[in-house]
Amino acid sequence: MSMKENNLSISALGGINEIGKNMYIIQYSNEIIIIDCGAKFADKDLLGIDLIIPDITYLQENKEKIKGLVVTHGHEDHIGGIPYLLKKLNVPIYASRFTLGLIELKLKEHKLLRETELVEINSDSNLDFGEIGVSFFKTSHSIPDCLGIVFQTPEGNVVHTGDFKFDLTPVNDQYSDIHKMAEIGTQGVLALISESTNAERPGSTPSEQLVGGHIEDAFKKAKRKIFISTFASNINRVQQVVDAALITNRKVALLGRSMVNVVSVAIERGYLTVPNWMLIDARDVNQYPPERVVILCTGSQGEPLAALSRLSSGNNRDIKILPEDTVILAASPIPGNEKDVSRIVDNLFQLEANVIYGSSSITGMHVSGHGYQEDLKLMLTLMKPKYFIPIHGEYRMLHQHRLLAESVGVTKENTFILKNGDVLDIQNAVARQTRKIPAGDTYVDGMGSDEVGEIVLRDRKQLSEDGMLVIVLTISKTDGKMFSEPDTVSRGFVYAKDSQELIRNLNSVAKTTVNNFKEVNILAMKRAIKKEVGQYLFKQTKKKPMILPIIIEI
Amino acid sequence: MSMKENNLSISALGGINEIGKNMYIIQYSNEIIIIDCGAKFADKDLLGIDLIIPDITYLQENKEKIKGLVVTHGHEDHIGGIPYLLKKLNVPIYASRFTLGLIELKLKEHKLLRETELVEINSDSNLDFGEIGVSFFKTSHSIPDCLGIVFQTPEGNVVHTGDFKFDLTPVNDQYSDIHKMAEIGTQGVLALISESTNAERPGSTPSEQLVGGHIEDAFKKAKRKIFISTFASNINRVQQVVDAALITNRKVALLGRSMVNVVSVAIERGYLTVPNWMLIDARDVNQYPPERVVILCTGSQGEPLAALSRLSSGNNRDIKILPEDTVILAASPIPGNEKDVSRIVDNLFQLEANVIYGSSSITGMHVSGHGYQEDLKLMLTLMKPKYFIPIHGEYRMLHQHRLLAESVGVTKENTFILKNGDVLDIQNAVARQTRKIPAGDTYVDGMGSDEVGEIVLRDRKQLSEDGMLVIVLTISKTDGKMFSEPDTVSRGFVYAKDSQELIRNLNSVAKTTVNNFKEVNILAMKRAIKKEVGQYLFKQTKKKPMILPIIIEI
Repeated sequence: MSMKENNLSISALGGINEIGKNMYIIQYSNEIIIIDCGAKFADKDLLGIDLIIPDITYLQENKEKIKGLVVTHGHEDHIGGIPYLLKKLNVPIYASRFTLGLIELKLKEHKLLRETELVEINSDSNLDFGEIGVSFFKTSHSIPDCLGIVFQTPEGNVVHTGDFKFDLTPVNDQYSDIHKMAEIGTQGVLALISESTNAERPGSTPSEQLVGGHIEDAFKKAKRKIFISTFASNINRVQQVVDAALITNRKVALLGRSMVNVVSVAIERGYLTVPNWMLIDARDVNQYPPERVVILCTGSQGEPLAALSRLSSGNNRDIKILPEDTVILAASPIPGNEKDVSRIVDNLFQLEANVIYGSSSITGMHVSGHGYQEDLKLMLTLMKPKYFIPIHGEYRMLHQHRLLAESVGVTKENTFILKNGDVLDIQNAVARQTRKIPAGDTYVDGMGSDEVGEIVLRDRKQLSEDGMLVIVLTISKTDGKMFSEPDTVSRGFVYAKDSQELIRNLNSVAKTTVNNFKEVNILAMKRAIKKEVGQYLFKQTKKKPMILPIIIEI
Repeated sequence: MSMKENNLSISALGGINEIGKNMYIIQYSNEIIIIDCGAKFADKDLLGIDLIIPDITYLQENKEKIKGLVVTHGHEDHIGGIPYLLKKLNVPIYASRFTLGLIELKLKEHKLLRETELVEINSDSNLDFGEIGVSFFKTSHSIPDCLGIVFQTPEGNVVHTGDFKFDLTPVNDQYSDIHKMAEIGTQGVLALISESTNAERPGSTPSEQLVGGHIEDAFKKAKRKIFISTFASNINRVQQVVDAALITNRKVALLGRSMVNVVSVAIERGYLTVPNWMLIDARDVNQYPPERVVILCTGSQGEPLAALSRLSSGNNRDIKILPEDTVILAASPIPGNEKDVSRIVDNLFQLEANVIYGSSSITGMHVSGHGYQEDLKLMLTLMKPKYFIPIHGEYRMLHQHRLLAESVGVTKENTFILKNGDVLDIQNAVARQTRKIPAGDTYVDGMGSDEVGEIVLRDRKQLSEDGMLVIVLTISKTDGKMFSEPDTVSRGFVYAKDSQELIRNLNSVAKTTVNNFKEVNILAMKRAIKKEVGQYLFKQTKKKPMILPIIIEI
C-alpha cells in the first residue's frame, strides 16, 4: 500500500471520531511529516488494557519517507504514544521548548532519551524538508507553548491548528498570534485542519484569568490549610495558584509525581515564576501553621492512586485533611470520570472540609482550553480555507464543526469529515477522498508495546463475568477408561466451598461424557465435555464460565 | 441482635450514601414496617454482577415482627429488590394502584405472583398494625401515583417523603397534596425522613408541563418520522408525547419491552389516555407515511440492548432511521451513562437524522422528578419536624440537605446523617444513634438470589486484567520425577501462538522448580510453581496472570 506520487495527501491515524491518540500525516510526493503521536486511556470494558495508541503500519511500510514528527503541544493525547512509536521507528522530533521538556520526561522513563533526535523549535522557526516547508504560529490552550502549524507544499498551504482557544487576556504571555494567523489567511490556505472538541458549545471560551480571580477569592476566605487540585500540565493555572499564595502569604507544597515533575520542567524552562523560598517539601507541611500553606496536588479527575484521592481517604502519611481545611477542585471531570470525582467529594465532606467543587459555571474554578463555537468560527474566518477537515472530536462534534464552517462560508462539499485511515488527496487544487491506509487501535498491555489481540480480550471478558473451571481427567491410553474421579478447580465462577454439590454433579456429567466414547479421541472428548458441562452449568446457574478440560493419557 | 423494646427506631438497609436500593425500617416495640425494597445496578468494576440488593439479615432474624412492606412508588430503586426479598420472606405488600401494576409485572417474571399478598392502597387509606398506624399523602414525581407516608406511633409521627418534587401544574392530576402535608405538619412531626437527590441544585424543579411544550414544538417542526425516547415509567411524559402526536396527526408505535409493558399497565389502570385507533404495531410503521408516525422507544440511557441503541446502529429489522427523521432524547443521562448516550448520538448524526439531545436546560426535553433546594425547603417547612433524617443521596447531598434544614430551623444536632445499618432510637422524645444492624450490598449474579463472595469477585478482577495460566505436570508418586514436559494452557494472558518462547521458558521454570524438591509435597510444589513462574512472567511481561498449577501423581 503506498500513496500516489506527486500529490498532496492528508490523513489521520488517530483523533477522528474520538478524543485521544491524535496522529495526522501530511504527505507530498515522497515526503511524510507526522503531526503529534498521542495516546488514549482505555475504557473500563477493555479489560486489563492500560493505553491505546495509533496503528502505525502505514508509517512502518513507508519509513524511508518520514522526515520527522512535529508536535503541537505536550498533552497526553498528543505525545503519549511517542515512546511506542520510537521503539519501532526512530524519527526526529520537532517541538517547542516546554513540549520538549515533557517529551523528555517520557523518554527518560522509557530509556529512549539518548538515541532520539530532539529539535527545539518556536513560533518563528522555519523548517525545510525539500518539497514541504513548515512554519508555526502561537495559540492559546490549557498548557504553555502551543503551536499551530503551516505546511507549505507545491499544491498549496495546509494549516493544522493544534488544540486552541482564543484567550485575549492570557496568563504568562501565552497569547494567540491573531496577526500571524491573519497573514497566513491572506496568503491563502488550501486546507484547514482544525480541532472540534467544543464545537457543540455556543459562545466563546472564557479566559484563564477568570479562574485566577476565583482562586484568589477562595484563598482569601480560607481559614486553615488549602488543597487545590488541577492538571499538572496546566502551568498557567499553577501560576495563578502561586500568585494567590503570594498575595495571601502562604507557602506552596507540591504533591503527586506528575505535579512535581511538570512544575520542575516549567520552572527550569521559564514558563512558571515561583520565588525560591515559597516552595516547601510536602513532608514538611505540618511544620507551618495551617493558614500559611497551600498544597497543590494531582488527582482532579478522581484517579484512585493520585494525591487527592489518597488525601480524601486519609491515606497520605504526612498530610491530613482536617475540619475547616479548604479543598478546591480546579478542573471539570472529563466524561467518564464523574463517579470517581464524586466519591472523593463525598469523602472530603465526611472529613468536614470546606469543598469547592461542581459545575465550573458556578464555582468559576475551571475554564476549558478548547475553543467554543465563536472561537472556532474566528479561526475559520482568519484562515479562509478552501477545504476544511474537522478533527479532534467525536462524530457529533465534527458534524457541528461542519455546520459552523458552513455558517462562515465553507461549502458543505468542501468540508471532509474523515475517518481514521481515510486519505484526502489533493491534486491540481481538487480534493478527493477515495483511498484508505491502515488505522486503528493498538492496545498497550503490561510491558511496553505489546499488542493484545481480540481473542485475548474476548477471553478476559468471559473470565471477568463468569469465571472459569478447569476439569482434569486422567484416562488410560489403551481403552480410554478413567483412572479416578475428575478433579475440578474453579475461579471467579462460584465459591467452591459453597457449591460442593454443583461441583460433584458437573464432575459426574464430565465422567459420563467421557465414558460414552468408544475410543480415545482427546479433541472430541474435550469438545463434548465443554458442551455438556457448559449446558449443565447454564441450566443450574445462568452463568457461562470458561471451561478448560484437561485430559491426561497414561 | 435485636432492637430495644418499647421504643421507636428508624433505620436504613439501603439508600444512604448511594442512589439506589432504597429500603428503610420503622420499628416500634415488636412491630416492623418496611418501606420500599429497591435494587441498584452494579458498577462496571463489579465484574459479572447484574444487580445489587440490600442485605436483609436483620429482617430474616426478626421475621415474626414484620407487618408488611409499604411501597412509595414504582421505580426500580424502590421495587427492584422485591422478588429477591419475597424468595426469603413472604410479607404482604401495600402499594398504590399503579405501583402495584409494576410490582405485578416483576412478580410474574419471577413466578411469585400467586403466593404474594398484594394490598392496594391510595392516599386516603389508613392502615392499623396495632402499635403503628399508617396513612399517606400524594406527591409529584416522575412516575404516577407516588405516596408519602405517615407512621403514627405512640412516640409520635414519623414522615417518609418518598421521592418528590412540587409540581404546581402537573400532568394527569399527579399533584402534591400540599394541604394534607400542612395538616400533617400542624399535627406535629417527630421525625422527617426526606429524599436528597437534588439537594445540591439551587432553585425549584421545573414542571413536567414544560417538557410537553417542547415536545409539541419539535413535533410540529418534524418533517418525517419522529423517534422519541424516554423512561417507560414516566407515564406523564408519555401522555405528553401522545398529546403532541394527536395534535400533529401522527400514530404512535411503542418500541422496547418495558415501554410496551409499562404503557399497557398505565392504560389498563387509567393513568394514561390514548385513543384506541392511535396505537399501531411497531412492525407496521412502514405502512404509514413517515410524517404520520411517532416511535416512542426505550433506551434513553444508551443501554446497548435497548430499542434506541439498536435503531441507531441499524439493527432493528422493521424500522430504519433515515435522513431527515427526527430523534428526540427526552431524558438526561444518569451519571455513568454519558458515554453510552454519546455513542448513540454520534451514530444518529451519521444516519443524518435531526437529533435533539444534550443538556436539558438547552433542549427543554427533560425535567427532574426530584425536588431542588426550594422544594426540599418547602417540605421541611410544611412538616416542621423535630428530628430530620436526610436519605436517598450520596453523602454530599445529605450534607447539603442538612444545611437546607438548618436554614429553615432544624438544628444541626437534631439532624442525623445515618449510614445504612445505623439505627436511630427515639425514646421519650429523645433521639440517639448508637446501635447498628447488619446492612450492605448483596450481589445478584446469574440465577436469582445467589450471593457472590468477595473471593470470587477478586478472582474475576485478576482474571479480567491479566488472564490465567494452567500448568499441568505429571509426576511419579514414588520419586517425584516428572513423566513429561509440563503442559500449559493460557487464556486472557498472552496469545499463545505469538508467545511460544515465553511458554517454553515458563515450562522450564516450572520443571526446574519441581525437580528441586527432594520429596513429593504437592502443596509445597504448587506454591513454589506459583511463586517462581509468577516472578518470571512479571519480569517478562509486567502482568500477573492467575497461575493454577495442577500436579498429577501416577
